[in-house]
Amino acid sequence: MNIKKKTTIKDIANVLNISPAAVSKALHDDSRISEKTKRAVKQVAKNLNYQPNHLASALRKGKSHLVGVIVPRTNSNFFSSVIQNIEEELDKEGYNIIITQSNESYKKECRNIDTLLFTQVDGIIASMANETIDLDYYEKIKSKGIPLILFDRGENDLNVDYIGINDYESSHLIVDHLVQQGCKRIAHIGGYKHTRIFNNRIRGYIDALKKHNLPIEDELLIESNLTTEDGRKKMTQLLALKNRPDAVYAAGDYAALGAQQVLNEQDIKMPHDIALVGFGNEPFTAMVTPSITSINQHSTEIGKQAAKTFLEHAKKTTIKQQLNKIILDAELIVRDSSNLKHI
Amino acid sequence: MNIKKKTTIKDIANVLNISPAAVSKALHDDSRISEKTKRAVKQVAKNLNYQPNHLASALRKGKSHLVGVIVPRTNSNFFSSVIQNIEEELDKEGYNIIITQSNESYKKECRNIDTLLFTQVDGIIASMANETIDLDYYEKIKSKGIPLILFDRGENDLNVDYIGINDYESSHLIVDHLVQQGCKRIAHIGGYKHTRIFNNRIRGYIDALKKHNLPIEDELLIESNLTTEDGRKKMTQLLALKNRPDAVYAAGDYAALGAQQVLNEQDIKMPHDIALVGFGNEPFTAMVTPSITSINQHSTEIGKQAAKTFLEHAKKTTIKQQLNKIILDAELIVRDSSNLKHI
Repeated sequence: MNIKKKTTIKDIANVLNISPAAVSKALHDDSRISEKTKRAVKQVAKNLNYQPNHLASALRKGKSHLVGVIVPRTNSNFFSSVIQNIEEELDKEGYNIIITQSNESYKKECRNIDTLLFTQVDGIIASMANETIDLDYYEKIKSKGIPLILFDRGENDLNVDYIGINDYESSHLIVDHLVQQGCKRIAHIGGYKHTRIFNNRIRGYIDALKKHNLPIEDELLIESNLTTEDGRKKMTQLLALKNRPDAVYAAGDYAALGAQQVLNEQDIKMPHDIALVGFGNEPFTAMVTPSITSINQHSTEIGKQAAKTFLEHAKKTTIKQQLNKIILDAELIVRDSSNLKHI
Repeated sequence: MNIKKKTTIKDIANVLNISPAAVSKALHDDSRISEKTKRAVKQVAKNLNYQPNHLASALRKGKSHLVGVIVPRTNSNFFSSVIQNIEEELDKEGYNIIITQSNESYKKECRNIDTLLFTQVDGIIASMANETIDLDYYEKIKSKGIPLILFDRGENDLNVDYIGINDYESSHLIVDHLVQQGCKRIAHIGGYKHTRIFNNRIRGYIDALKKHNLPIEDELLIESNLTTEDGRKKMTQLLALKNRPDAVYAAGDYAALGAQQVLNEQDIKMPHDIALVGFGNEPFTAMVTPSITSINQHSTEIGKQAAKTFLEHAKKTTIKQQLNKIILDAELIVRDSSNLKHI
């Protein structure tokens, strides 16, 4: 492939032996330039395959019509569905999105933020990496006056717009359901406590156990990175307990999938021996055997609301006083893995 | 949120009552500027929270260290795995990637290309939308001298680097396997003929049938957009035939999934009544019941090779003579949906 240098205004100026400023004026149909010169400039621009620098133009106007999206990973139905819905909403208003993924790494997330700031995005919609504790990089976005909207994984401390589901209440829905099924030793494979949503799920789990007068036992509450692999490990750990749980609630569907694989391999019957519940309603939860009970996280609504919140910012040039904090009610979808009555 | 204007060199110049050019020189430690002025400029820059414009710097140097990736969708294990591997390879060399998705729309793909060119990416790695026939937008990338690498869905006519699997040979692997299982009326839910990879799969299907002296029948070869929904439709269409097929080879796993849903709903047994084969080895093919035979597309290798090909371009400033055309051998993973001997 031929690595050509881009034609610049200077190149056109050199051909015509006029100043670059005159070329720029001619290209912008400035009245101070003669029609003859304008025609000459435009002809040379065409011959040299000159492409006006939209970027420079965006920098001048302060608008790129680009919105950056940061997700932990695209390989998740929840995140890709949120992205899809952000895109559909913004598309209507002439905005394009560019996507970056952190792979749950804080360092990568920082680089993503730099990349998006570098590309002069008009706003950033993000869901934080598992690893992220330090909020300096997110503060950087705010300090630049660029609208920042968080979804799913956010932090109250940042004091920005947020859209998510009621994680605390979701744990109540799950525990209530498992208790109804007769479960008495409910384990929780939870996410990292420092992440707000996972902390809320853990708090909800503990409070719901208390509500039902069930004991809270340290060995039944395990922190995990919620990958399939780690779900396998944590399930194996739970099965090694002297007193096994009769139900496992994993804070993510991929971890639930790993747990299910171990249960299937060891021929432990779901839900009879151990009931299983996941979180996120990934499509595979309906496909596997037994199908896995899960929480619908309303990715469609989250994506739409995130986009709308950005558009509210974009349409205002003054200080926006009120923050959007949209907390959607979760929905429990009961499937075979926890439905004792059904079987 | 406070919408602040970004501090510019001009702002610093105004505070100190010197020229913007002097500020720029001071910030770049130019020897023509006194140490005293440099200190003053840097202090004011800090006070005003001045952020050097990396973009302008990139424009000057002609390097953004960004690579744009265009995929039909991120919600596919194949594409997100390719992205993952591109990212890992480029990360080692200090490149970041930004991802855009076409949602199989030609119009969206054109806008994605404009977005990536706008953000001054150093290269583009792309897999084409189903809809794309007109190659003008891809020619635009080439005309700008930006390295373009296609993977999976590419076009010979563009004459650029390409990494993919041997689609023609994959169809032979599938048909050979189905014939071995005793199938005699093999249907193909294929992709759009105008897309090179799908055309190759169709050609492979036809030639493999000929090889086994099986009749080629129009009613058994159907074009599809290969979504789950369309897989359902096309399977329903095949079941309505007077003479039903005894095997269905879908050119994509999502279409195979739709076909499987219809077969399960109508209680048609796989593989006894109809054997089913997909393409892509999406994780769900191993999870569903029965598990679906599929082709492993080597997403890891494709991602790594695409990144390496870009890096070869990036390291050269002269004309690159030789194009990379990397065609990987496909691998058939036989599962329950087509394995008559196994059951």
